[in-house]
Amino acid sequence: MSELRKDPIVGRWVIISEERGKRPSDWASKSNLKPDDKMCPFCPGNENRTPTEIMTVTSSKSQEQSLSSWDVRVVPNKFPALSIEGDLERRGYGNYDMMNGVGAHEVIIETPDHEKGFAALEVEEIFEILNVYRARIMDLKKDKRLTYVLIFKNHGEAAGASLEHSHSQLIATPIIPKRVIEELEGSKLFYDMKERCIFCDLIQQEIQLTSRIVSIDEHYLVVEPFAPRFPYETWILPREHFSHFENMGEKSCFVMAQVLRDTLCRINLLLDYPSYNFILHTSPVQRPNLQEYHWHLEIIPRLTKIAGFEWGSGFYINQVPPERAASELKSVELIN
Amino acid sequence: MSELRKDPIVGRWVIISEERGKRPSDWASKSNLKPDDKMCPFCPGNENRTPTEIMTVTSSKSQEQSLSSWDVRVVPNKFPALSIEGDLERRGYGNYDMMNGVGAHEVIIETPDHEKGFAALEVEEIFEILNVYRARIMDLKKDKRLTYVLIFKNHGEAAGASLEHSHSQLIATPIIPKRVIEELEGSKLFYDMKERCIFCDLIQQEIQLTSRIVSIDEHYLVVEPFAPRFPYETWILPREHFSHFENMGEKSCFVMAQVLRDTLCRINLLLDYPSYNFILHTSPVQRPNLQEYHWHLEIIPRLTKIAGFEWGSGFYINQVPPERAASELKSVELIN
Repeated sequence: MSELRKDPIVGRWVIISEERGKRPSDWASKSNLKPDDKMCPFCPGNENRTPTEIMTVTSSKSQEQSLSSWDVRVVPNKFPALSIEGDLERRGYGNYDMMNGVGAHEVIIETPDHEKGFAALEVEEIFEILNVYRARIMDLKKDKRLTYVLIFKNHGEAAGASLEHSHSQLIATPIIPKRVIEELEGSKLFYDMKERCIFCDLIQQEIQLTSRIVSIDEHYLVVEPFAPRFPYETWILPREHFSHFENMGEKSCFVMAQVLRDTLCRINLLLDYPSYNFILHTSPVQRPNLQEYHWHLEIIPRLTKIAGFEWGSGFYINQVPPERAASELKSVELIN
Repeated sequence: MSELRKDPIVGRWVIISEERGKRPSDWASKSNLKPDDKMCPFCPGNENRTPTEIMTVTSSKSQEQSLSSWDVRVVPNKFPALSIEGDLERRGYGNYDMMNGVGAHEVIIETPDHEKGFAALEVEEIFEILNVYRARIMDLKKDKRLTYVLIFKNHGEAAGASLEHSHSQLIATPIIPKRVIEELEGSKLFYDMKERCIFCDLIQQEIQLTSRIVSIDEHYLVVEPFAPRFPYETWILPREHFSHFENMGEKSCFVMAQVLRDTLCRINLLLDYPSYNFILHTSPVQRPNLQEYHWHLEIIPRLTKIAGFEWGSGFYINQVPPERAASELKSVELIN
């Protein structure tokens, strides 16, 4: 079983999850994302190459076309960083704190079609994926040991994807990730001063300013943040205050699918189909509705490698002002 | 002039430094680090391809061998993220805070030899480079606007180096990087409780445990940290308490050169010459000696790309337990 360890100086938890049998020299060999399609464990027909599924979604449409027996399929990660069995066993040694690597690590296979990127999916298909995210969060929050569910997507090799077939990942943890804690603390501080949600405030300010808006409709604001770490970093925020992603309504979720697809298409067309990550920022699952926190999705195109010292220092240099990025992304002509 | 902007939620400052003329499509073209040697701006004979030098070091040895007129050369970065002229002009707009991009961005060209990697340099040469770091910090701290001097090295393309010729960088800023603030706050908290430096404590604990030690001598401990973010992340800590790197003595600095060279050679031999970053963690330059903070150097081999969501979440999965990494690095047979 893996182990969660806490850095004694800054308080950051990391997962130490040994990949057994990997030797130092293996690190040097770069994988590339072009395995034989027939071997792809995420393709229909190869279902036995993954652990037993946790959930599948099947629409009548896919049944008719008999492309595969499922549209979206959730399976445990074959090499899980955390596992659901066992007790936390919090313990310490001198200045060090640790606990067992209890949690969940799942893969959401987003489409049966090996060739289709996320942004090439239909809005209805993306809607199904977002619904799967919600359903998995709802299910996992029943386990009171789990305090946070992190959902993210690595698209493309430069973004850390180890398989080409479109998928996202979910990690449910007994601790709250550091970046989330920082956001929660920052927004709590603001709320205590002003009795307003800082995200709601920023949404209003951005709408008035207009210069960093990529797109806007009745439900969502797509914006380049004021102080972005990365070129073309893009946030999608619901205009209505919601602290928990999983509490969104159906309608809101469907519009989110449209907006997400639209935004990724803009990024693809402007930046020539870059690798990217998206990360869902939502509230800890065991907490009730929070007045001070506002769920949102952050998209980070992986354009630069100039990120070594950023890791070590928390200090970022961004060569594209967000106002320019917004203007360029806004101007993209979507064919659709 | 570039601009420093503060994220209104988590308080992180970023530098927005526009590279003018760069178009979105330029991001897609991957640079590679094999320019014509004759064109290398860091090679002897091409000194006019860089801005005028700030400092050079020349030893009698290099003069005799007439390889070049200098051993180490410090120049302003040709595309500086920060510039030394101008006022800070702190200002705000609604919830947003910003100031002018005042500071210094320098390049330390570590050797005249285009072919030599840092770890292939002689101990005396590395000693000269460390002395240059100290001298530059001493000089820049005279400018009271500058509160922090960040020194780091990107080695290899995967680590963000844009030129092959061995060099490190220095960024002096009017703000303290977030990661440094976290370390300062964490170690202050510990000091307030215990009246001891947490780093001194960890050094003692690691020496007793032995399992994470890579190497140790009278002056330095080289160790894999208890909760490392990355495989083979390695820290070099002075055993004696020093808060400021620039206050080290000559002797200590010379031993550091030996230890750094030794450690990089171990990493190179074990991991087949990976790209890596090293980052000097030292105290803010305008503060007096701190009882609670302890300078150290962090080395991060760039082995994995699986770091997309880590950027967004502050949550890390490390597949190599530090005990195993330490044992492997310790066992490397150095030829020398």
